[in-house]
Amino acid sequence: MDYRIEKDTMGEVKVPADKLWGAQTERSRNNFKIGPPASMPLEIIYGFAYLKKAAAYTNCELGVLPIEKRDLIAQVCDEILEGKHNDQFPLVIWQTGSGTQSNMNLNEVIANRAHQIAGKKIGEGEKTLQPNDDVNKSQSSNDTFPTGMHIAVYKMIIQTTIPGIIKLRDTLKKKSEEFKNVVKIGRTHLMDATPLTLGQEFSGYVSQLDHGLKALNNTLEHLSELALGGTAVGTGLNTPKGYAKRVAEYISKFSELPFKSAENKFEALAAHDAFVETHGALKQIAVSLNKIANDIRLMASGPRSGIGEIIIPANEPGSSIMPGKVNPTQCEALTMVCAQVMGNDVAITIGGTQGHYELNVFKPVMASNILQSARLLGDACMSFEEHCARGIEPNHVRIKELLNNSLMLVTALNTKIGYYKAAEIANTAHKNGSTLKEEAINLGYVTAEEYDEWVKPEDMVGSLK
Amino acid sequence: MDYRIEKDTMGEVKVPADKLWGAQTERSRNNFKIGPPASMPLEIIYGFAYLKKAAAYTNCELGVLPIEKRDLIAQVCDEILEGKHNDQFPLVIWQTGSGTQSNMNLNEVIANRAHQIAGKKIGEGEKTLQPNDDVNKSQSSNDTFPTGMHIAVYKMIIQTTIPGIIKLRDTLKKKSEEFKNVVKIGRTHLMDATPLTLGQEFSGYVSQLDHGLKALNNTLEHLSELALGGTAVGTGLNTPKGYAKRVAEYISKFSELPFKSAENKFEALAAHDAFVETHGALKQIAVSLNKIANDIRLMASGPRSGIGEIIIPANEPGSSIMPGKVNPTQCEALTMVCAQVMGNDVAITIGGTQGHYELNVFKPVMASNILQSARLLGDACMSFEEHCARGIEPNHVRIKELLNNSLMLVTALNTKIGYYKAAEIANTAHKNGSTLKEEAINLGYVTAEEYDEWVKPEDMVGSLK
Amino acid sequence: MDYRIEKDTMGEVKVPADKLWGAQTERSRNNFKIGPPASMPLEIIYGFAYLKKAAAYTNCELGVLPIEKRDLIAQVCDEILEGKHNDQFPLVIWQTGSGTQSNMNLNEVIANRAHQIAGKKIGEGEKTLQPNDDVNKSQSSNDTFPTGMHIAVYKMIIQTTIPGIIKLRDTLKKKSEEFKNVVKIGRTHLMDATPLTLGQEFSGYVSQLDHGLKALNNTLEHLSELALGGTAVGTGLNTPKGYAKRVAEYISKFSELPFKSAENKFEALAAHDAFVETHGALKQIAVSLNKIANDIRLMASGPRSGIGEIIIPANEPGSSIMPGKVNPTQCEALTMVCAQVMGNDVAITIGGTQGHYELNVFKPVMASNILQSARLLGDACMSFEEHCARGIEPNHVRIKELLNNSLMLVTALNTKIGYYKAAEIANTAHKNGSTLKEEAINLGYVTAEEYDEWVKPEDMVGSLK
Amino acid sequence: MDYRIEKDTMGEVKVPADKLWGAQTERSRNNFKIGPPASMPLEIIYGFAYLKKAAAYTNCELGVLPIEKRDLIAQVCDEILEGKHNDQFPLVIWQTGSGTQSNMNLNEVIANRAHQIAGKKIGEGEKTLQPNDDVNKSQSSNDTFPTGMHIAVYKMIIQTTIPGIIKLRDTLKKKSEEFKNVVKIGRTHLMDATPLTLGQEFSGYVSQLDHGLKALNNTLEHLSELALGGTAVGTGLNTPKGYAKRVAEYISKFSELPFKSAENKFEALAAHDAFVETHGALKQIAVSLNKIANDIRLMASGPRSGIGEIIIPANEPGSSIMPGKVNPTQCEALTMVCAQVMGNDVAITIGGTQGHYELNVFKPVMASNILQSARLLGDACMSFEEHCARGIEPNHVRIKELLNNSLMLVTALNTKIGYYKAAEIANTAHKNGSTLKEEAINLGYVTAEEYDEWVKPEDMVGSLK
Repeated sequence: MDYRIEKDTMGEVKVPADKLWGAQTERSRNNFKIGPPASMPLEIIYGFAYLKKAAAYTNCELGVLPIEKRDLIAQVCDEILEGKHNDQFPLVIWQTGSGTQSNMNLNEVIANRAHQIAGKKIGEGEKTLQPNDDVNKSQSSNDTFPTGMHIAVYKMIIQTTIPGIIKLRDTLKKKSEEFKNVVKIGRTHLMDATPLTLGQEFSGYVSQLDHGLKALNNTLEHLSELALGGTAVGTGLNTPKGYAKRVAEYISKFSELPFKSAENKFEALAAHDAFVETHGALKQIAVSLNKIANDIRLMASGPRSGIGEIIIPANEPGSSIMPGKVNPTQCEALTMVCAQVMGNDVAITIGGTQGHYELNVFKPVMASNILQSARLLGDACMSFEEHCARGIEPNHVRIKELLNNSLMLVTALNTKIGYYKAAEIANTAHKNGSTLKEEAINLGYVTAEEYDEWVKPEDMVGSLK
Repeated sequence: MDYRIEKDTMGEVKVPADKLWGAQTERSRNNFKIGPPASMPLEIIYGFAYLKKAAAYTNCELGVLPIEKRDLIAQVCDEILEGKHNDQFPLVIWQTGSGTQSNMNLNEVIANRAHQIAGKKIGEGEKTLQPNDDVNKSQSSNDTFPTGMHIAVYKMIIQTTIPGIIKLRDTLKKKSEEFKNVVKIGRTHLMDATPLTLGQEFSGYVSQLDHGLKALNNTLEHLSELALGGTAVGTGLNTPKGYAKRVAEYISKFSELPFKSAENKFEALAAHDAFVETHGALKQIAVSLNKIANDIRLMASGPRSGIGEIIIPANEPGSSIMPGKVNPTQCEALTMVCAQVMGNDVAITIGGTQGHYELNVFKPVMASNILQSARLLGDACMSFEEHCARGIEPNHVRIKELLNNSLMLVTALNTKIGYYKAAEIANTAHKNGSTLKEEAINLGYVTAEEYDEWVKPEDMVGSLK
Repeated sequence: MDYRIEKDTMGEVKVPADKLWGAQTERSRNNFKIGPPASMPLEIIYGFAYLKKAAAYTNCELGVLPIEKRDLIAQVCDEILEGKHNDQFPLVIWQTGSGTQSNMNLNEVIANRAHQIAGKKIGEGEKTLQPNDDVNKSQSSNDTFPTGMHIAVYKMIIQTTIPGIIKLRDTLKKKSEEFKNVVKIGRTHLMDATPLTLGQEFSGYVSQLDHGLKALNNTLEHLSELALGGTAVGTGLNTPKGYAKRVAEYISKFSELPFKSAENKFEALAAHDAFVETHGALKQIAVSLNKIANDIRLMASGPRSGIGEIIIPANEPGSSIMPGKVNPTQCEALTMVCAQVMGNDVAITIGGTQGHYELNVFKPVMASNILQSARLLGDACMSFEEHCARGIEPNHVRIKELLNNSLMLVTALNTKIGYYKAAEIANTAHKNGSTLKEEAINLGYVTAEEYDEWVKPEDMVGSLK
Repeated sequence: MDYRIEKDTMGEVKVPADKLWGAQTERSRNNFKIGPPASMPLEIIYGFAYLKKAAAYTNCELGVLPIEKRDLIAQVCDEILEGKHNDQFPLVIWQTGSGTQSNMNLNEVIANRAHQIAGKKIGEGEKTLQPNDDVNKSQSSNDTFPTGMHIAVYKMIIQTTIPGIIKLRDTLKKKSEEFKNVVKIGRTHLMDATPLTLGQEFSGYVSQLDHGLKALNNTLEHLSELALGGTAVGTGLNTPKGYAKRVAEYISKFSELPFKSAENKFEALAAHDAFVETHGALKQIAVSLNKIANDIRLMASGPRSGIGEIIIPANEPGSSIMPGKVNPTQCEALTMVCAQVMGNDVAITIGGTQGHYELNVFKPVMASNILQSARLLGDACMSFEEHCARGIEPNHVRIKELLNNSLMLVTALNTKIGYYKAAEIANTAHKNGSTLKEEAINLGYVTAEEYDEWVKPEDMVGSLK
């Protein structure tokens, strides 16, 4: 392979000749061979591209960067955002915990690419831009990396997570209305209970997701706070006056998302409670989705020896050995995602506790976990909606059969004959394998007419209204 | 021991003669010998007392319970809330997951105690109140237990958790102002960095807790939703019209807390995402407190061979073998609480995922964990505030010594001579064990006058203002 | 209340006159009002009693403690182990992370009680024993607390956890044999699959617990290592020669458990990986039990609208509103315990990571969590065994009905007619609501005779043998 | 793009013409667009390659597969293992929880590639091999996927995890010996304590890793159990006699790893406690590494305002804004890995609990998490060893300075003058900022000669020997 020589404050480094990165990126590649290469999420690289461009505009506006340099930086950032340099970011999550090396990766790529745009050959002639003094001007890794990761996560949540959840929520809502008259047996403790409608069951799912969306939205304000302007330790050393506020405005403008400068830059560097908070809401939604998916696969179980109250779409052959088998595969993918999100929550929690003094150095691990959770939840909701929820249909025959068998209809008699006599009826019917009505009459507690009038499943589902 | 015979729908049970509980409580005692007895938190019992009283008032108002029964029930509930019957609730957390047995424990104690109040002897004469038909009227365990636990948790958070956090937050805020001119060395990656003030460090802690309190408050609305009125499966079977809304109003009145009837009763029985949500905020606060306590013990470390920048109160002899030792014991208690809260979060998360159909049967484990977290956090903040935070003082001599030694003051030269020359100065001083000023002049990059003008720690902490 | 004055190196403290503890215990009571009082587990107090007695014997044998003092210490320790002083240990888990204050609580109680035994009044006359110089001789909190907690946990695991698991394992094994000829439908993805026997299902549970017990036993060697002899930082300062080994022998003798002196005392003070290891095995067992309990409640679900393949004991009325309801309450208690254990695992993991230099100061939180898990698992297995597992019976009628309905019996034809034709048969029968046999013949793939010969459920369960 | 038509039991599917996969793989690609494509780890694909080859050999040997088919299958498996078809496995983790679709991906790729090897064009002519009837013969996804994942994880642990840990352990051991005479101050609660040697500190790290390796090795036996031979539900339906044992032998032979057939196939399909067990040990090692890395960065902190007792290699510029800064970046990468592993543990735990009846359908999420942990730990240990541990050097000047300052040397006087007088000396010296010796003499408790004889740090580190 061809190499060129790049330099940093520690000396010379050989870098592959065809790559835009410089000495510090190459050092990091060599020093951190942990897991597959290039694991640092591209979303964070893109977050950096927004902020580097915004910083250039702000620096220029505040008089500390010439307009030509601003435009060069902005041009490369735009190229990065178009995905033209995806292969120039080879670093891993498992590097320095401040993400300094990824910040330098950006600084170096932008400087070298600008050199090319200026018509020169990398490594030759006077540097068009200095990675630290120009591209990183008024910045530190300590405020850029958290800014880049907030941009990345906010964007993912707005563009992927929330739309996915809403899509699924809306379909469940529609199903809830479709099924509002499908009276079925209720189950508590997995055991037969009093009836409700299938629509009511689905309304519970909708309510869970509505609460989850509200909880997620509640966290967005904290997440919208950007560290940029704090530089090395939060004091804003080496930034021009007015910089922090202005740079957040430029980031909002370029990203079209409502960011603001963090109220307290010391917190914004030293703690990532905003991630803990937002991921807490993602985890809550995972908990809700887990319940929903579990219910659906239980109700769809069978086809002949399970519950079988609903029918879900058959998307693929279910078994490599059992012919004709169809499985609740979307429920499985979704609940596996939920398990991952719950695990990620612990990684983020642990990362969140470990700030020391002016810096939390678990930034990359926290950012990669929250990005994964946000992406997987959004995608999985979309997939589940399209390939499962949308196609759910009641199995009316089965639902009716199970409903009419139930001993728990006896509860309707509580207010007529008291809990204890009602229990006697149910227990006797259970023992004898008979019907409630038979035993109710045999025991002399009600007449046949009374029974028929008082025990109507369709009347047992509506007193909330 | 003396016994009397109590009955339920399954038959007779021997109950200790001096106890107010009945057959079902006794069955549970015998069937669930898991862990220490009476582990079901008293706060939940009290939550039940509020709701049983409120249910009696509502039932009476809606014409399904005579006023005499209402008053008897209310009187016993008041006695319970005064702590007069704490020893009548012997059940454990590890019972049925719906908490049915604790609901029956309340029903039985209230019925038997009412019998006494009515001047009769327990087990003799016609029952004054029926546990199921009167005390439990218009209720099911499935809506009472979640109601009782919401009341208990909401109360704990309002009365213990939030006051504790605010108390600590206010003291840290005061310290932040006191220390606003104490310039000290910053540290990132635990390594020397550019300066800031001790007040700025503390302002970060305040900001963390402010965000945490906001997050916690955001969850209270979901937590204020009460399941009561849903009865067995969420449909409200066997409740009079208007019951759900009215009973929530009575609970609010009696408890003096702003509860409301849950929007969706199916969710309120089958899922406890409200707990997942609230505990998520508690966990976030634990993450914040962990950072704060860690910083304080690191800064207080020494007295002679550590960092030693602050002095914390010496509350007790620190060692049974090392004479004269003083330790950051409040930091330790607080961070142990944080570890517990983070563990509890996983228990609650797992419990939250496991609702099936119309009921989540992990109620007691979820409730006991969130109560523990809420109590411990509030208490630990109070303790930490009183015995540690309040007494923190800067060690000015030590702070000045460490500040002036620092090589990172060189950062102030970046904007004057560029990052690369500044790095050369710092590296040379590090190698030679000399001062920045010496090497800056030796290398010919600045004059002594320039150095003194440009490198002033007190000027490096304020550009955010 | 009456008080007396006690002193420590920091000065005087008022202590309730009727209590045996001294100044440092009282300071801790006042300084750590976190959660309910006396939360420090008694098991740890008893662990201390073993080690204080053993230390006294060793000190005496090695010539640094007079025999009279040894005997006084031993006598009080024996009283403590008999439970006579349970109310003398009022401290909480949330104290100093080294447990120093509980160590001093023991030292003070032993010294004061010895003073009484010596016929004197506490606080009067020359001290019979000095808490630090005599009772704590050759010890530090840093090696006593981890020793006490290892003793407590080891004992709990040997006396409660393992016997409970074995009890349940043996009953499941017995059931597995009883049910070895009960052919039933298998289920994968909750969907109908090829048959197996109920005994085979139970054999899987037995295998899980066998592996779990093996895993737990594998951890006992690490757990048997005692820190005692390391004193303050692991070097054994202020211990007589031969002390560490000898004191472990005495502890083994008094506790009748096979302890040994830790190979490396620096690890034994600064890290509690042994707890992480042992609790990892407890968590594994919780995972296994969760699966087992879930299966059992699913199989027992119904009675009329669920799976209903097995019948579990009806131990108590299941519902306060639904008469005649019976629930899988033991499964619920057990899985709630499992959720707690999984949460505790995270608390212990976090505690385990946070040793710094020569000491881990998350000892009390780690110890209390592992003790809780060990106790709850043992107790819950016992309860589940006695009140559920032991009484499980197959519902033969239902099992047969579900088996014969199944479309997955078609798998037996794979090796005769190939997967694709078999799938066609199953799909057609599913679509038409018909039987496999009908469609197999209709499609012309097999004759009636072939079908009957090839598709025999009882032949589909045994090729492993 | 060009397509060809592939068929499965559900009908026709369009597949990219240049790909080797078939209908079911394509269905899965379309139905599970969750997260980035091809996230199913290649290690699992390779695990499948071993087992498909082994199954072919066993089937042939037992007379149910012709030798030509065996050789074709084996040839393609070898190509896969050489990495020639890495781009033919496009599926994601978030598919069906049994991994059926990845099993079919393998079956289809092998069948189609065999068709090519047989000189035909995919989609033309009679199929050379049937994916289900030939490649999948005597198999089910339910036993192949767990087999493939056990092979993958076992291999990763043997080839990456354990070598990485041993490498680091050996270097720490070497350092421990090198530093055995470097007496330094000990620290407990982060506070000054009695001395020990730097070598003793490192010996604690070695002991942690030795215990961790032992714990990991203890889990390998369970992990070596392979499910293959259980087929659909554990009964081994459709396998020839002797198959299970023989196929495990072939897998061992081909993979050169000591696998064996699982004792109980029902467990092996329905539960993945072996993963819970093995990952428990990985998590324990993460806990140990976290402690070690934390200690090293604390001891290396500074260079001028921290602890500074050791010097670690300077591998890269530490800051984009602070010139000359060097950070403990390897400690940061390693502890971030540890946080990830602890998070993964929860994902695996949750996955492990969720087996139902005959199958656990959280296989892919469990497998991908354990593979990630095993890889990251091994890689991170290698990286930490090479770029940090190997280069650690004591800062003798600093160590001596901190040691001699310490007030905790007073502990040596306990056995001479008692704890209480010793405490008085330390407290007085602390208050006066004086030395222990001065105050010891001033207070009249010891003479200068006695002090010099009794208080020798080098004598305080060795009584364990």
